[in-house]
Amino acid sequence: MNILFIMYDQLRFDYLSCAGHPHLHTPNFDRVAAGGVRFTNAYVQSPVCGSSRMSFYTGRYPSSHGAQWNGFPLRVGEQTMGDHLRKLGMGCWLIGKTHMKADAEGMERLGLAPDSLIGARQAECGFDAWIRDDGLWGQGPDGFYDAKRSPYNEYLKAKGYDGENPWADYANAGIEDGEIASGWMFANADKPANIREEDSETPWLTGETIRFIERADGPWCAHVSYIKPHWPYIVPAPYHAMYGPNHVPAATRHQMERDDPHPVLAAYQSNRIASAFQRDDVRDKVIPAYMGLIRQCDDQLGRLLDYLERTGRMDDTMIVLTSDHGDYLGDHWLGEKDMFHQPAVKIPMIIRDPRARADATRGTTCDALVEAIDLAATFIEAAGGEVPSHIVEGRSLQPWLDGETPGTPDWRDVAISEYDYSVTPMCTALGLDSRDARMFMVFDGRWKLIHFEGGFRPMLFDLDTDPDEFRDLAKAPGHEAEIARLYESLARWGRRMSQRVTRSDADIAAMRGRSARKGILPFLVDGSEVPEDLTEKYRGPVRQTHLGTD
Amino acid sequence: MNILFIMYDQLRFDYLSCAGHPHLHTPNFDRVAAGGVRFTNAYVQSPVCGSSRMSFYTGRYPSSHGAQWNGFPLRVGEQTMGDHLRKLGMGCWLIGKTHMKADAEGMERLGLAPDSLIGARQAECGFDAWIRDDGLWGQGPDGFYDAKRSPYNEYLKAKGYDGENPWADYANAGIEDGEIASGWMFANADKPANIREEDSETPWLTGETIRFIERADGPWCAHVSYIKPHWPYIVPAPYHAMYGPNHVPAATRHQMERDDPHPVLAAYQSNRIASAFQRDDVRDKVIPAYMGLIRQCDDQLGRLLDYLERTGRMDDTMIVLTSDHGDYLGDHWLGEKDMFHQPAVKIPMIIRDPRARADATRGTTCDALVEAIDLAATFIEAAGGEVPSHIVEGRSLQPWLDGETPGTPDWRDVAISEYDYSVTPMCTALGLDSRDARMFMVFDGRWKLIHFEGGFRPMLFDLDTDPDEFRDLAKAPGHEAEIARLYESLARWGRRMSQRVTRSDADIAAMRGRSARKGILPFLVDGSEVPEDLTEKYRGPVRQTHLGTD
Repeated sequence: MNILFIMYDQLRFDYLSCAGHPHLHTPNFDRVAAGGVRFTNAYVQSPVCGSSRMSFYTGRYPSSHGAQWNGFPLRVGEQTMGDHLRKLGMGCWLIGKTHMKADAEGMERLGLAPDSLIGARQAECGFDAWIRDDGLWGQGPDGFYDAKRSPYNEYLKAKGYDGENPWADYANAGIEDGEIASGWMFANADKPANIREEDSETPWLTGETIRFIERADGPWCAHVSYIKPHWPYIVPAPYHAMYGPNHVPAATRHQMERDDPHPVLAAYQSNRIASAFQRDDVRDKVIPAYMGLIRQCDDQLGRLLDYLERTGRMDDTMIVLTSDHGDYLGDHWLGEKDMFHQPAVKIPMIIRDPRARADATRGTTCDALVEAIDLAATFIEAAGGEVPSHIVEGRSLQPWLDGETPGTPDWRDVAISEYDYSVTPMCTALGLDSRDARMFMVFDGRWKLIHFEGGFRPMLFDLDTDPDEFRDLAKAPGHEAEIARLYESLARWGRRMSQRVTRSDADIAAMRGRSARKGILPFLVDGSEVPEDLTEKYRGPVRQTHLGTD
Repeated sequence: MNILFIMYDQLRFDYLSCAGHPHLHTPNFDRVAAGGVRFTNAYVQSPVCGSSRMSFYTGRYPSSHGAQWNGFPLRVGEQTMGDHLRKLGMGCWLIGKTHMKADAEGMERLGLAPDSLIGARQAECGFDAWIRDDGLWGQGPDGFYDAKRSPYNEYLKAKGYDGENPWADYANAGIEDGEIASGWMFANADKPANIREEDSETPWLTGETIRFIERADGPWCAHVSYIKPHWPYIVPAPYHAMYGPNHVPAATRHQMERDDPHPVLAAYQSNRIASAFQRDDVRDKVIPAYMGLIRQCDDQLGRLLDYLERTGRMDDTMIVLTSDHGDYLGDHWLGEKDMFHQPAVKIPMIIRDPRARADATRGTTCDALVEAIDLAATFIEAAGGEVPSHIVEGRSLQPWLDGETPGTPDWRDVAISEYDYSVTPMCTALGLDSRDARMFMVFDGRWKLIHFEGGFRPMLFDLDTDPDEFRDLAKAPGHEAEIARLYESLARWGRRMSQRVTRSDADIAAMRGRSARKGILPFLVDGSEVPEDLTEKYRGPVRQTHLGTD
């Protein structure tokens, strides 16, 4: 079996028709959902691209893999799904974005050449890169944000688009009065991107994916990782015109969120992104573009699904659709992601297992508490392996695909997510030490506790009585018991065994009692305590050269 | 300056005359203490050789470095004091024991050849090995406990001692009725070892140390790591006869420790080692041998100090004397180490800084809460470096050597120690999952909480009112507040930032605001929000090849 692991960037869980969006029609996402299981309670381990992705790829929490923010290199030797899957005879390929930064210093320390096979995989997060493009070719006075070569820019240049950065000038810009109108400006979000639709990023990467599958010899796992619907929010025709202000849902926000808000929430509510998304004119331009980008993703997904059906790959390929985090889009008076409300931390997750074992669950939903790290475990099991639980902290979702119901005692009782905002202006604004600019979410499916380092009070939401997460119950007394219970879960998680990566539980069982049979017997009074065969070595005639008493 | 980092194995904190032992005279330990600072509240991060040493060498907690027990390989790439010191131009050498197991699988995964310089250092815990000898050449039906070549056995063979394992037949055996009487048997502990005193392990390693210093070109850090007074408990003449039953302190134990003991304590109290040490005849033979071994260590330390004085090295060498953990010797009805009572987890730590800056503190004691991981930080600072606090979790002890008093707010308020007993028979006896066979100590200088995974209640001791740790206050209600407070400290520790090893706090400060100057501007409504120089890239005439609207 193959695995088609498709990730969209910054795709909200609720911007799909199968997830109940009132206006956005996504027939192809729905088509995969109809043939598989849609997980309705899936959470990322961090609401920021890089950290979340490192958790997807390693199957480990940010505090375990250490790459807590974009541009924090993943330490050399940290194992990813590529390491695990290749051991099982399954190739593991990258087509698109990882946002992974290589640990160049660590590689040099270990003498790993970046151009060696091992070095290249270390530098690409364990993937063999069919194509690596992180899709953010921003450029400023200090040069490009991404120092790597841009395959997409190369593609555009080959297609005749000119300039050193057609990504910015064409794919992510419109036109106004004969001038380039940058997609960075929300004011331009309603313009069509200055590019042929078939040359825009999503169709381009879909074409690369089909090229890969045509040439791949399986079994393979392909991580197809789209940059969209991530900002810049601008989309080519006809998608720019498919949705308008009348399709924009009202912002999920309430005045009570502005009254004496938690200091960290207040800092985020007053940053530039939030201020922009608090404006209706911004939402009315940006959200239709965001919807258009998703609709384009859906059409390209359809193109891919049709190809799989034509070639018979549908029958031997597990299809996974997910996202690295959501987008506030003005909900809770916020923009971007960065905190733990559902629009940021909850993700779409749809898995279609082609095997007969999964027939019973096709078209169903599963509301178990799922974490992004579960996918690495799921893929390892799908590849025929046993999940190395001393390394991978996630759990295989196969039981849910098979229709078994592990039941609460067998499944996790809380989902954990972490956010390190030490690099952001909010850390400075709040006057925090970088180590204190960290927050943790503990969510049990009903109660969501947010712990902040740095001496702040926690936040608490009850999603049963307050599904929109307006009422911060930790603001006032009354819920000490729930808070204590969730802190207990966080403490247990903090004591987890996450770094014993060189010894499996099976190794440990096998080690027991071994040392005695290798002559380590630090408990003998006279030898009568153990079988003769363990002690005979220690009896017998004195050697000839008995120098001790010369 | 050089660093002479001397570790004794299983040396109790209170078996030195400078620490108040009633009968054991250790003039040379006292001599170093008189010239430096003796830390009276120093604790290991784990009461087992391998795990404790990996914490000494990495400056990190067992849960951070992952090598929680003997024979758990230290993950490839995990940085040790050798990595940090060499970067600062200081060599870092090993003379003796580390109990480190190389991560052969990880090294192979990264293509690291064990015989390359980088590979050899990875395999030797970051040290350059002048001589590596772990000093446990036990041999049984399954062969040698330690598969490596034994330099000490080679030395003995060269000296004419015969057989394949003279370590067992001579250095660690006596004679009875013309037969070898193994040092493994406590019944033989009062016999003289069947070897010339000068050929026994401690003088041999001291000779190797002097040979190293004669040839070393500094600055260097030498980890001189003796196997003694670790078992087998047998010592050559005349040391075997220096102490007798009348020099054996009464066991620090009380009947109340046997009444309804904590289940894990009960399991340890009934294992073979404990049962042996509960016998007075065993203590009366073993403890005098243990004292003789320490006295021999002291004499050899004197030999080393005399050499340093003769050669002027005393003036440019920092001397550190410590141990990897203690030894119950029957206290609390226990043998060996394995739990968190003071005899097991508290260690001797004496540091003599030759520099004038430390003159004020010579001959003093310091009762700050010190952890074994602080030495790596201390050495990095002594070598002229800044402690990389994103990697090394310990803190430099230099302020205490300089006589500054950081004061409580600036210093840690609890010492943490961990113990993973998943490989031991106690895990099986208690029917525990290997992950639940873990315990943690949180000690604030007065209150000591011991948390057990696996659903057990905690233990609590108040060392002010109960310095001998007889009364487990968690057995009955009454101390919920102290228990909650210490659990709070453990939880905070559990959330520590321990794996962000590829980004320093300084890196993070430098990263702030950078992305905007590299053209990442996901918050522009119309560009007016930022300086012109950040947005000019996004304005200007449309390119000629304006394919978007052909």
